Amino acid sequence: MLTDKDVAGPLVDHHCHGVSPAELDFAGFQALFSESYRPAPKGTTEFQKPLGLAIRRWCAPVLDLEPSCAPEAYVERRLVLGAAEVNRRFLRGSGLDELLVDTGHRSSAIAGIAEMAEIAGRPTREIARIEAIAEEAARGCSSAAGFAQAFADLLEARARQSVGLKTIVAYRCTFRIDQTAPDKASVDAAADRWFRHAAEIGKFRLEDPIIVRHGLWLGAEICRQRKLPMQVHVGFGDPDVYMHACDPTHFTDFIAAMEKWEVPITLLHNYPFQREAAWLSEIFQNVYYDVGVILNYAAPMATDILGEAMEMGKYSKLLYSSDAFGLSELYYLGALLFRRSLMKVLNRWLAEDACSVADAEEIIRMVAQENARRIYPIN
Amino acid sequence: MLTDKDVAGPLVDHHCHGVSPAELDFAGFQALFSESYRPAPKGTTEFQKPLGLAIRRWCAPVLDLEPSCAPEAYVERRLVLGAAEVNRRFLRGSGLDELLVDTGHRSSAIAGIAEMAEIAGRPTREIARIEAIAEEAARGCSSAAGFAQAFADLLEARARQSVGLKTIVAYRCTFRIDQTAPDKASVDAAADRWFRHAAEIGKFRLEDPIIVRHGLWLGAEICRQRKLPMQVHVGFGDPDVYMHACDPTHFTDFIAAMEKWEVPITLLHNYPFQREAAWLSEIFQNVYYDVGVILNYAAPMATDILGEAMEMGKYSKLLYSSDAFGLSELYYLGALLFRRSLMKVLNRWLAEDACSVADAEEIIRMVAQENARRIYPIN
Amino acid sequence: MLTDKDVAGPLVDHHCHGVSPAELDFAGFQALFSESYRPAPKGTTEFQKPLGLAIRRWCAPVLDLEPSCAPEAYVERRLVLGAAEVNRRFLRGSGLDELLVDTGHRSSAIAGIAEMAEIAGRPTREIARIEAIAEEAARGCSSAAGFAQAFADLLEARARQSVGLKTIVAYRCTFRIDQTAPDKASVDAAADRWFRHAAEIGKFRLEDPIIVRHGLWLGAEICRQRKLPMQVHVGFGDPDVYMHACDPTHFTDFIAAMEKWEVPITLLHNYPFQREAAWLSEIFQNVYYDVGVILNYAAPMATDILGEAMEMGKYSKLLYSSDAFGLSELYYLGALLFRRSLMKVLNRWLAEDACSVADAEEIIRMVAQENARRIYPIN
Repeated sequence: MLTDKDVAGPLVDHHCHGVSPAELDFAGFQALFSESYRPAPKGTTEFQKPLGLAIRRWCAPVLDLEPSCAPEAYVERRLVLGAAEVNRRFLRGSGLDELLVDTGHRSSAIAGIAEMAEIAGRPTREIARIEAIAEEAARGCSSAAGFAQAFADLLEARARQSVGLKTIVAYRCTFRIDQTAPDKASVDAAADRWFRHAAEIGKFRLEDPIIVRHGLWLGAEICRQRKLPMQVHVGFGDPDVYMHACDPTHFTDFIAAMEKWEVPITLLHNYPFQREAAWLSEIFQNVYYDVGVILNYAAPMATDILGEAMEMGKYSKLLYSSDAFGLSELYYLGALLFRRSLMKVLNRWLAEDACSVADAEEIIRMVAQENARRIYPIN
Repeated sequence: MLTDKDVAGPLVDHHCHGVSPAELDFAGFQALFSESYRPAPKGTTEFQKPLGLAIRRWCAPVLDLEPSCAPEAYVERRLVLGAAEVNRRFLRGSGLDELLVDTGHRSSAIAGIAEMAEIAGRPTREIARIEAIAEEAARGCSSAAGFAQAFADLLEARARQSVGLKTIVAYRCTFRIDQTAPDKASVDAAADRWFRHAAEIGKFRLEDPIIVRHGLWLGAEICRQRKLPMQVHVGFGDPDVYMHACDPTHFTDFIAAMEKWEVPITLLHNYPFQREAAWLSEIFQNVYYDVGVILNYAAPMATDILGEAMEMGKYSKLLYSSDAFGLSELYYLGALLFRRSLMKVLNRWLAEDACSVADAEEIIRMVAQENARRIYPIN
Repeated sequence: MLTDKDVAGPLVDHHCHGVSPAELDFAGFQALFSESYRPAPKGTTEFQKPLGLAIRRWCAPVLDLEPSCAPEAYVERRLVLGAAEVNRRFLRGSGLDELLVDTGHRSSAIAGIAEMAEIAGRPTREIARIEAIAEEAARGCSSAAGFAQAFADLLEARARQSVGLKTIVAYRCTFRIDQTAPDKASVDAAADRWFRHAAEIGKFRLEDPIIVRHGLWLGAEICRQRKLPMQVHVGFGDPDVYMHACDPTHFTDFIAAMEKWEVPITLLHNYPFQREAAWLSEIFQNVYYDVGVILNYAAPMATDILGEAMEMGKYSKLLYSSDAFGLSELYYLGALLFRRSLMKVLNRWLAEDACSVADAEEIIRMVAQENARRIYPIN
């Protein structure tokens, strides 16, 4: 049977975000491990869920506290140590080899690529989020007329410094959309509408399906030319998600088109569609997948979810990610729970006499690093 | 590790129906633990499924029979004892603290609120089913013109004596409907059509989506004013259900609207969407959920389903219900299987060293009673 | 507790295809245990998934190799022994009682009914695939005018020599279609369009929903008259599948219509909708189901999937199938994994003290043979 030592090797975290440098109070800390727009109901806390238990149980000792200490004591200790020290402890304790960082979500509130490298003491590489770049390009344009070119130029420039692109089409329009590239006239007309709407509401938030699709195909063309994977948000997320329409099998046509172009698609998180994602990895040559932040949320049940993801999926296509954002605890827990869960799934396979120890060791190597290194340009 | 004793405390059953006082023969007994409109195929019985095994295994001893006795012997013994004695034994043996009873389904065939209190020897409170009240109001109207007012009056009156409302919109129209409130003219026109149709077929069965939506918002307004939760049927049910369209994430817009109004929504049963329900409890402040009658149907596999429901959901939002209807066995089994399953899930968490015994004890207290008491006006 | 001996009895494989007589090289062998249209990505193989581990682990010894031998050694040994010997070993080693063989998929590349009987040394019976017969009828017509009659005649003739029909409507149009029978004028018009399109592209591939629906109802009428079950492909398959629309609960109306006609519907594979399939078996008198080839794909996790299928489903309605196509390994593994998984599920039920050993033995008998024999005309 495998032990902790067998899964202790460094991981490539192929999808995470930056940590928050803020000194977080009790409410602020809770807000960063919740997908809700509102606080927990009166008389309850965010700690009253598996992720809350996991933070108290496994993160507390890293801050010199007793396992499963009181929530208030945990947050207090965090403030005493200071965010810089806390972040350093968790990130350096995560056993990561390299971090691929999506810089497009609330980027002003979190550490950038260079800071992340410094905090973690490990190399970090950038993933460029298409929709955020479209919004940034729009903000830089004096009128809609210049948008298409500005977007193309900015995306190209960002892609040059990145090791992959990412789309959150699922958040913005769901996957139940026309999946072809829109023509230029439609894009221009949509940009026009968008700029007028943005002038009214005072900000650029990209939700127009035509421009989202345009960005998707602009990104796809870049990925094809530069041989970059495209990360695709799937399933689990905040209240913007219409979950039933974020089943990745609604995105089959785009995925199939990318297979023709030989663009690797990495399906992120996927919960509760981890089985669908694994099936897509079986039928499409270009599909890769992870279970991301779900292991943190499910904590003691993480093994079951990773197990489902490994039911039929190719282990040559399973990736590790923490999808951590904001709290450095989430990078640490992500790695800890992934290692534990993978060990438990493989020990079950060994107990079932379904593979050899050498097979299990190959699976660990592939999932921890080799699969990511095969598809991302990270040496 | 936890033992049976740790989960033996009284439960609030926040969603059940009345028991049948009928003396049931072999066919009649089977019909009450099936969701089908037809009997089992020739050469088979309803006992040939997990729920059938569970009744023979765990209910037989309560009727002084050997565990796993023959189905025929079980039904015969039931007749010998008489329904009154059988119902008393099972309901008093369930270890319930309080029962919240939906009185809107086949209410002429089952015991009412007061009888239930007498049989169970415990307090019972009413949950008013919106669609049943609409039908009752319609039956009392001489013409469609008076329906809207009559419905509003009757719902208001029933709500005054109830601790929550319930909607079965999923059964009647699925969740894939416009989720806004219809205007008065549409409601009046729809009532007109409904009354003409009812005159033709000789009964009022509410399936019109406009009136269903009207009832939903009428109920919502009452819940908002009176601070009552609204129970929502989700997923598992009889052949009226189009399951794919009863995924609760199709009801996101209404749920979000109720979050703004601070109306607690309790998602019932949820199978096979227990993960989706748990996710909704994470992202929406007002969402609560249970796995209801599913534990009875899954019997030996009940732990897995409760486990999935507890993967990411807030345990400050998980409720107990039996969803029992008709057979008193179902109240008894519901409580037994919930206690066993909860103990097993928590023992797994303890075995994974994912929480402390004190945490587990808090979870039991919350799920057994405190969560229900926090949202229902039952002191 | 049950042991291997308790589940060792012969199985009726109610849904499989023919084996390939080809001598398969490394690429050719991999292609036959993949649902993809393309080979595994460069630097990876099809062996890097649970099914690949299972072939190496459990099939290698049948070919006199060490368990978990290298993939290349496995394929080389297969070539040395020759396909005829390999197929004989696996099929005779599967412990099957009788095989019901779908002859409508790539039938020129695989063994027919008589050959399968010879290779397996057991009786084989035919299942007629409606859509393949429609295409065959079309190929035999000089014009669209004669299609409807030719199709009806050919389907009737094939049904006479078959023990069931099968539809792959899910593959060709998904289940999200009008589920009524189209009228004659629509069918004729659709045939006209189909023949013109076929003349252009040079082959008849049935994808027109009107003709598919016509075939479905033509088949239904035959099943009703001849008392044959209709097999329905559900869920898991190749890239032609839009998975979200192949949830069997999208096919509720047709299933309910067949309940009225007393036509048994057998839902095939079902993954990832095994829970939905089991629920349909609970609510509809005429619904039966299996988990087919999924046990092969999930190999060490097969028990979990069979377990979910058995959560609420009637075990009087669960069937065994391998859904094997091409590789004789798949018949062998299918039977091996089904027996192991069933034993493990039932041992868990026994460990939970949820049924008696006699109950478990009845379940094994029903699932292995009796359920199939009750609905198919195979005495």
